[in-house]
Amino acid sequence: MASTLLAHHPWTKHPLIISAPMRLIALAPLAVAVSQAGGLGFIGAGSDLNDLTNQLKHAKALFLDNHIKSEVLPVGVGFINWGADFQLALDILANHIPAVAWFFAPERNQDLLRWSTGVRDVTQGRTKIWIQIGTVADAVEVANLCNPDVLVVQGADAGGHGLERGAGIITLLPEVADAMQAIGKGNINLVAAGGIAEGRGVAACLALGAEGVVMGTRFLASEEANIAKGYQDDVLKSSDGGVRTVRSKVYDTLRGTTGWPDRYGGRGIINESYMDAVNGEVTDEMKRLYEKALTKGDEGWGEHGRLTAYAGTAIGLVHQVSPAHEIVSEVRSQALKLFSPPHTSKL
Amino acid sequence: MASTLLAHHPWTKHPLIISAPMRLIALAPLAVAVSQAGGLGFIGAGSDLNDLTNQLKHAKALFLDNHIKSEVLPVGVGFINWGADFQLALDILANHIPAVAWFFAPERNQDLLRWSTGVRDVTQGRTKIWIQIGTVADAVEVANLCNPDVLVVQGADAGGHGLERGAGIITLLPEVADAMQAIGKGNINLVAAGGIAEGRGVAACLALGAEGVVMGTRFLASEEANIAKGYQDDVLKSSDGGVRTVRSKVYDTLRGTTGWPDRYGGRGIINESYMDAVNGEVTDEMKRLYEKALTKGDEGWGEHGRLTAYAGTAIGLVHQVSPAHEIVSEVRSQALKLFSPPHTSKL
Repeated sequence: MASTLLAHHPWTKHPLIISAPMRLIALAPLAVAVSQAGGLGFIGAGSDLNDLTNQLKHAKALFLDNHIKSEVLPVGVGFINWGADFQLALDILANHIPAVAWFFAPERNQDLLRWSTGVRDVTQGRTKIWIQIGTVADAVEVANLCNPDVLVVQGADAGGHGLERGAGIITLLPEVADAMQAIGKGNINLVAAGGIAEGRGVAACLALGAEGVVMGTRFLASEEANIAKGYQDDVLKSSDGGVRTVRSKVYDTLRGTTGWPDRYGGRGIINESYMDAVNGEVTDEMKRLYEKALTKGDEGWGEHGRLTAYAGTAIGLVHQVSPAHEIVSEVRSQALKLFSPPHTSKL
Repeated sequence: MASTLLAHHPWTKHPLIISAPMRLIALAPLAVAVSQAGGLGFIGAGSDLNDLTNQLKHAKALFLDNHIKSEVLPVGVGFINWGADFQLALDILANHIPAVAWFFAPERNQDLLRWSTGVRDVTQGRTKIWIQIGTVADAVEVANLCNPDVLVVQGADAGGHGLERGAGIITLLPEVADAMQAIGKGNINLVAAGGIAEGRGVAACLALGAEGVVMGTRFLASEEANIAKGYQDDVLKSSDGGVRTVRSKVYDTLRGTTGWPDRYGGRGIINESYMDAVNGEVTDEMKRLYEKALTKGDEGWGEHGRLTAYAGTAIGLVHQVSPAHEIVSEVRSQALKLFSPPHTSKL
């Protein structure tokens, strides 16, 4: 099984470490660094594709600098499907042929059929289709609809956007795996996301049945992340992520992001904006204070700040900023030390 | 490390499978069956100790029937500390010397110092002290206060009572492990709870650093559980536990249980009681309907029922009722197949 996924992306090594397509934060430098370390890096295109061509060109240039040539561009692109322009996406993908198109949060699952078919058409199947889900029901529906190459199974501990109510990866991954077997889709590779920040979490996900593991919060503390220092410092300083982070709609409301389907919320570090939002309600005064915090730079973040620091419950496992390639290779070797299932010893 | 825990309880086998002290459900037959299978079974004494002496006598009789003699009674007892009578607990423990006293949900962590000291005194240290926590801060506080033999690290996926807001085991267990190392308490064994129902989850928790694994929801579907058929059927029929279960205070309010400290809620299967409780508010009419459902027997449970079916997000991994000894040995052997870390091969 693992070999299918690694074979699709021949520069990757087991266990496959994936950097999450964090909107505005995961750009070409992070994606390229992760892929160059034998992982699979993603550019977070999100809901607005206006900068995506530039990012893909930048990625290509970075690979050429390192004398790496490949039929496909060895990074993936993450889309937030309720907002991303379909035709523009196809044009860009056809021109640049990234290794993967990762879909997340369509208005309706049905919409992903058009996306999957379209991307496979314009890239002649060279761009693989990954679909992120957070429930067993969604996994079954999109597997039947789109037959993706990979399901990204996102547990409740994930930072940023995810389902407001959901299970952790500890139950969601094995239940999705069983559901795929039951509907004859056991060939779809499963990748785990949500709460994984180092080798122990990766080893745990391999034991649960994942073929690869996505890390987001860990890469917020990478040198290549496009992130404000105030935000990054908040991640480094915070711990006890079940207490210090929370999933809510408060930050979307403050920022005026209105397009997310109702069942999604964003997990972020608790700050004064969240504390003020009694019952999740955001006032005009809170919006004014948020706008004011935007002018303060790095001071706008932190426990007593007001700016959004999306992060997962893994914040307490992230202690220092490192180059992405070090993160990838360190986590991979920690995981291999912990977890060598019987089947890998036969390889 | 694992050897410390196994040595304390010499009838147990690696990996240690523990049955949760579920109030009213986990009584002598379940606890004894689990321990007889090489696990560690718990009697859920909860907040009311009036039946505990009977349960311990029953357990002793069951062991004698099987010609098992031991200096300590090879089962544990779980207390809900905000409600349990301290002096009565000491008297009972002194008389029966169970292997473990498991503490959970004191009004204040500070209260557990008296409990730990008292139990160690009256049992001459033969009854080991386990303390359940759901945050890193609580883990550090109780470790420093009580120096427990075991911390039971409960993730957000757990059924029944737990913290209303917390992390899943995927981040909580490793962060607690690191915190214990940092305060010089690395000798405290960590046991994982919350979302584990079969071998993959057990293997994952071993990879995360747990020395043993607690299962609750899985044992709801054991032959020895003291559980209504309607409740058990609901567990068997339900799946997609992140969607079909939710943590709230609704069921405590309906049942008139008022003693839980504010930060706790109970995870249960969603039914009409929960659906009616807009913003968590419970009306007199809802209480009346709940009381009426109590008269309906097994019909009172289920998606369209009103009675409380506490269960974790692992419901979708539980498919049949089995004898507890089969559950223990099956889960143990599944886990061993998946996870054989380097250090066990040296044993």
